[in-house]
Amino acid sequence: MRIGLLTGGGDVPGLNAAIRAVVKRGEGTHGHSLIGFRNGWRGVVDGDVVPLGRPQIRNVLPVGGTLLGTARYHPHADDGGIDAVLATLEAERIDALICIGGDGTLHAASKVAEAGVRIVAIPKTIDNDVWGTDRSIGFDTAVTIATEALDRVHTTAESHNRVMIVEVMGRHAGWIAVEAGIAGGAELVLVPEAPFDIEKVVRFLKHRHRAHASFSIVVVAEGAVPAEGTAMHYRTEVGRFGEIVAGAIGERLKTEIAERTGFDTRVTVLGHVQRGGIPTAADRILGSRLGVAAIDAVTRGETGVMAAVQGERVVLLPLGDVAGKVKHVPADLIDVADTLA
Amino acid sequence: MRIGLLTGGGDVPGLNAAIRAVVKRGEGTHGHSLIGFRNGWRGVVDGDVVPLGRPQIRNVLPVGGTLLGTARYHPHADDGGIDAVLATLEAERIDALICIGGDGTLHAASKVAEAGVRIVAIPKTIDNDVWGTDRSIGFDTAVTIATEALDRVHTTAESHNRVMIVEVMGRHAGWIAVEAGIAGGAELVLVPEAPFDIEKVVRFLKHRHRAHASFSIVVVAEGAVPAEGTAMHYRTEVGRFGEIVAGAIGERLKTEIAERTGFDTRVTVLGHVQRGGIPTAADRILGSRLGVAAIDAVTRGETGVMAAVQGERVVLLPLGDVAGKVKHVPADLIDVADTLA
Amino acid sequence: MRIGLLTGGGDVPGLNAAIRAVVKRGEGTHGHSLIGFRNGWRGVVDGDVVPLGRPQIRNVLPVGGTLLGTARYHPHADDGGIDAVLATLEAERIDALICIGGDGTLHAASKVAEAGVRIVAIPKTIDNDVWGTDRSIGFDTAVTIATEALDRVHTTAESHNRVMIVEVMGRHAGWIAVEAGIAGGAELVLVPEAPFDIEKVVRFLKHRHRAHASFSIVVVAEGAVPAEGTAMHYRTEVGRFGEIVAGAIGERLKTEIAERTGFDTRVTVLGHVQRGGIPTAADRILGSRLGVAAIDAVTRGETGVMAAVQGERVVLLPLGDVAGKVKHVPADLIDVADTLA
Amino acid sequence: MRIGLLTGGGDVPGLNAAIRAVVKRGEGTHGHSLIGFRNGWRGVVDGDVVPLGRPQIRNVLPVGGTLLGTARYHPHADDGGIDAVLATLEAERIDALICIGGDGTLHAASKVAEAGVRIVAIPKTIDNDVWGTDRSIGFDTAVTIATEALDRVHTTAESHNRVMIVEVMGRHAGWIAVEAGIAGGAELVLVPEAPFDIEKVVRFLKHRHRAHASFSIVVVAEGAVPAEGTAMHYRTEVGRFGEIVAGAIGERLKTEIAERTGFDTRVTVLGHVQRGGIPTAADRILGSRLGVAAIDAVTRGETGVMAAVQGERVVLLPLGDVAGKVKHVPADLIDVADTLA
Repeated sequence: MRIGLLTGGGDVPGLNAAIRAVVKRGEGTHGHSLIGFRNGWRGVVDGDVVPLGRPQIRNVLPVGGTLLGTARYHPHADDGGIDAVLATLEAERIDALICIGGDGTLHAASKVAEAGVRIVAIPKTIDNDVWGTDRSIGFDTAVTIATEALDRVHTTAESHNRVMIVEVMGRHAGWIAVEAGIAGGAELVLVPEAPFDIEKVVRFLKHRHRAHASFSIVVVAEGAVPAEGTAMHYRTEVGRFGEIVAGAIGERLKTEIAERTGFDTRVTVLGHVQRGGIPTAADRILGSRLGVAAIDAVTRGETGVMAAVQGERVVLLPLGDVAGKVKHVPADLIDVADTLA
Repeated sequence: MRIGLLTGGGDVPGLNAAIRAVVKRGEGTHGHSLIGFRNGWRGVVDGDVVPLGRPQIRNVLPVGGTLLGTARYHPHADDGGIDAVLATLEAERIDALICIGGDGTLHAASKVAEAGVRIVAIPKTIDNDVWGTDRSIGFDTAVTIATEALDRVHTTAESHNRVMIVEVMGRHAGWIAVEAGIAGGAELVLVPEAPFDIEKVVRFLKHRHRAHASFSIVVVAEGAVPAEGTAMHYRTEVGRFGEIVAGAIGERLKTEIAERTGFDTRVTVLGHVQRGGIPTAADRILGSRLGVAAIDAVTRGETGVMAAVQGERVVLLPLGDVAGKVKHVPADLIDVADTLA
Repeated sequence: MRIGLLTGGGDVPGLNAAIRAVVKRGEGTHGHSLIGFRNGWRGVVDGDVVPLGRPQIRNVLPVGGTLLGTARYHPHADDGGIDAVLATLEAERIDALICIGGDGTLHAASKVAEAGVRIVAIPKTIDNDVWGTDRSIGFDTAVTIATEALDRVHTTAESHNRVMIVEVMGRHAGWIAVEAGIAGGAELVLVPEAPFDIEKVVRFLKHRHRAHASFSIVVVAEGAVPAEGTAMHYRTEVGRFGEIVAGAIGERLKTEIAERTGFDTRVTVLGHVQRGGIPTAADRILGSRLGVAAIDAVTRGETGVMAAVQGERVVLLPLGDVAGKVKHVPADLIDVADTLA
Repeated sequence: MRIGLLTGGGDVPGLNAAIRAVVKRGEGTHGHSLIGFRNGWRGVVDGDVVPLGRPQIRNVLPVGGTLLGTARYHPHADDGGIDAVLATLEAERIDALICIGGDGTLHAASKVAEAGVRIVAIPKTIDNDVWGTDRSIGFDTAVTIATEALDRVHTTAESHNRVMIVEVMGRHAGWIAVEAGIAGGAELVLVPEAPFDIEKVVRFLKHRHRAHASFSIVVVAEGAVPAEGTAMHYRTEVGRFGEIVAGAIGERLKTEIAERTGFDTRVTVLGHVQRGGIPTAADRILGSRLGVAAIDAVTRGETGVMAAVQGERVVLLPLGDVAGKVKHVPADLIDVADTLA
């Protein structure tokens, strides 16, 4: 078989592990030919292909980003996009497609599958909010980076009597905020799943500083919002690709807390450092396992499915069950974060 | 309630996160008093107690080891051991016990539970072979450390034309070897689950070096053994606590491979560095979640159970179902490691 | 002798190594008694002392921050401050003082020395701009953290066609910007030593993106400013302690570059993560060596001097030669950064 | 000009930074053509050349090892070696040579310079024993890795009452042992510069464990030896390239200490992990600065010199003054390590 591979959406660490696994298993075990499309669906529409074999995947395991490039382009949202995809696949004599991406890419994949293309998807997003899989590629590295930042801020906060706000990624779901908050020992974690009341936040901080502490670390997901009817008015602004302006909620919280408490309040916006650099062992393993599962599935004739990890097993889920849904942080995990504050 | 806490067996990173979670949730949410036993079951038998409250758990989240100390002593294997445990618990007016440990500690816990003590256990072992839980505390950090070592050896191996053997921990199960082997891009992974044939190993290495490579990295679990009836004779030697002599299989493999291939063969034995240092974010989160689950369970009156993580959920399993069993690496994961070599 | 120790100014990783060295050498080799003042000169003025012996310095080597606390208070800038210092030293029967800090602390130390107190100083500042010493405590860790951030941004920038601005610390001198810029492979480094022309910056970026690149990383020190008479008007705003508002120049550059080039331009402000966390080996060694040199000097009767590292040697310099001067990045090192862009 | 570049001896992290700097400065600033020789002097003798320009150095800054490969071959030690070097340089029309290596490579360079070739050298060795330069490429990374290992062993040692021996590299000089020993808080550091008395070692450990400690960490350089006339007999065995058998002194010390103290004694041999992996920021900066200095020197017509770092300056030293000498750890630095134990 001749199989195409693409990575779509924002890049994350661990993508190259998945690409490498698809190529090694595809070529070595199944005898397929692999080709890559550059810059996600954009490359399929434009017919921008690159060879993909052992030389291309040499030494990529510890390298962040994606050797195929990526783009936030979705063919189903573009007039004639799907037709252009089909035309390229025919011109390049592609028998099947493996695409690695977040919700947008998965959505596109389900549309392309409906158009008759054999397709298997692999979930990646540092937000970890793809439905149906315990983990998406990139999440473990992002939590690790955010936790390191909290460890660092912790030492400095302790020496100085202050409130440190750390803004992390997470538009619809607060996975990074909750997990890094637990691992990094944050005092307060604010996430989209639980709109906050600024007056309660302020009361908590005042009480804490009065009682026994001289500093507090607040982790806030970029998509966190105040609860309706509470004292702070704020609306998340989103950009062209649905991305949130980095620092918006962090800076605003800083102002609100500083004014309402009088404490020396600072903000650190982690931003793009969360999605770059060396993937953790866990992200490389996840990428490798999902890559192997995807190429095996495509070889067996599966289509319209996503490889997902559930506990210790890798399973296949229908794209239709997955795309468009958000996996929120469960209440018991938010409760752990709140308890350990 | 007055609740005792101990950590038993070899120490691993992430234990302090679990201790901290038990204390914060126990004191803060449930209003319990917590006390610690020093050096595992040894401290229970000897009545060696330390106070355990907010001051003791300050800043421990990123610290390896265990603030309570640990020991490889098991009361059920010692004459009068269980009686001494019961005497101390009564003298200290302990209502329940939470113990964090590997198989030996879990076994002891089930015996102590049978003697009528309310007890909940938390699994830790860098070997990850506790049955019933996807992950045990310490494993993620060990895989991370082993993967870093493989990344390092990789660069140097490439420049020099040689076979590098890296021996990692794993007596009964090859979890570290398989996961680090995948993440670190090893060419060959040898584990207890799949006894090896030295002649096949040698053929693989010769073929690989003839065909396209000038170096190979072989990861071997300390408990890996040659298959019966094959050309290499070797028996794992174990010490007093069932531990394997570090470097034994690594050094032996080095000799066998060097003699049979003529290649420049080196061995690196990771040893104790695998179980020390800063816990990864994942191990801190795991320790925190299991700590919260254990203290909640004990508060609800559960006994004779172990808190375990399965997928995204934390569950409770009867100690009797868990103790004495080994969770082996599943064949499909070994297959991924073999494929990506 | 009875010797007091304080840490002043912003905290940095490596302070605890210096404290530990002073205590171990002071107690163990010289037989002195050590006491600590909490929160820098503030604690001397207030008589806020803590015992300082082996128990206090246990396990502090890898811990960031300072176990003594710190404050940005300078007694010579406060009415009656120096007198209060003298009163406390007499009340506590202190024979000599060792103070670890940046320019403000060194300045205070020289004033206190003039008032007749035996005093030896140790330089720390992540800005590395203390005159007379190759390195100040905290700088190596800050460069390491900034370089890691550049490594991370590098992978993500490559996948996305954009300009990434990374703002690092450095008010008067651009040491972090230049060294991290070299180590992290930045395309452009803007520092206080060389006021920039925004039109040249823009021409460079346009040319680069036209010629061969799809991304650029610009590192800017917080104290970088446009050259007078050039097209961009900007004045550094400083806070109460002479500190610069984090993100000010970074955000402003982002706007200027985005408007003038039309490129997708982002900014990351490293902020407080640069001064926290585990000290590098080099900062621990530097702190240890300077700590030993300072206590040895004080024991020999030296006063009014600072321990400094020059090449492989540790030397003593008169505080009067050091305080109030800024060590700028030499032109040849800026040239290396420019060349390798 | 047409300039050849080679890397010789054992590989270390930071070599690629030096190669990149030579190429960027050579091509970009001076307009030279660069070519690389593969596998050190071996490639010069064999005429094994590779193109060396911007494509080859892309993304190499954070990558360990050397993109040119290396070998432990020295032309002056081989009949006709120097003649073969001269023949290749003429055939390839090479105007000058830059070679990066340790003492063997520097020695070869001085011989080739005497034969009339324009040549400038750059020092690298994780042992840091090249005379005349404060630092050689690779040393800072090795110390960092060894310190991380000590941090890890520290947590685990504390929990278990034992003596942990950590063997690090350093044949003629104990730089890694001393600096990592200081940074990692070792209790005892044994180096080639100060032959040890096993009976004193044992007395120290017994006293320490009796007095106040339950564990000790001993760092030993691979080239450490017992003093003549003392109770332990041991001779360093060296291999074909003058390298020391990894683990020899570590294992022997373990036996001696265990037998003489009865303490549970373990050994960890860091081995090849010390010379692999991501170079630290300091090693990338050092490589970059020395690379720029070397190509600048060669362009100005310098020959027979080595670029070296002394304090904050880069200087040129005659190869004849450098080759064949060993830079030992100065007594005052060993004294710091001993004091802080």
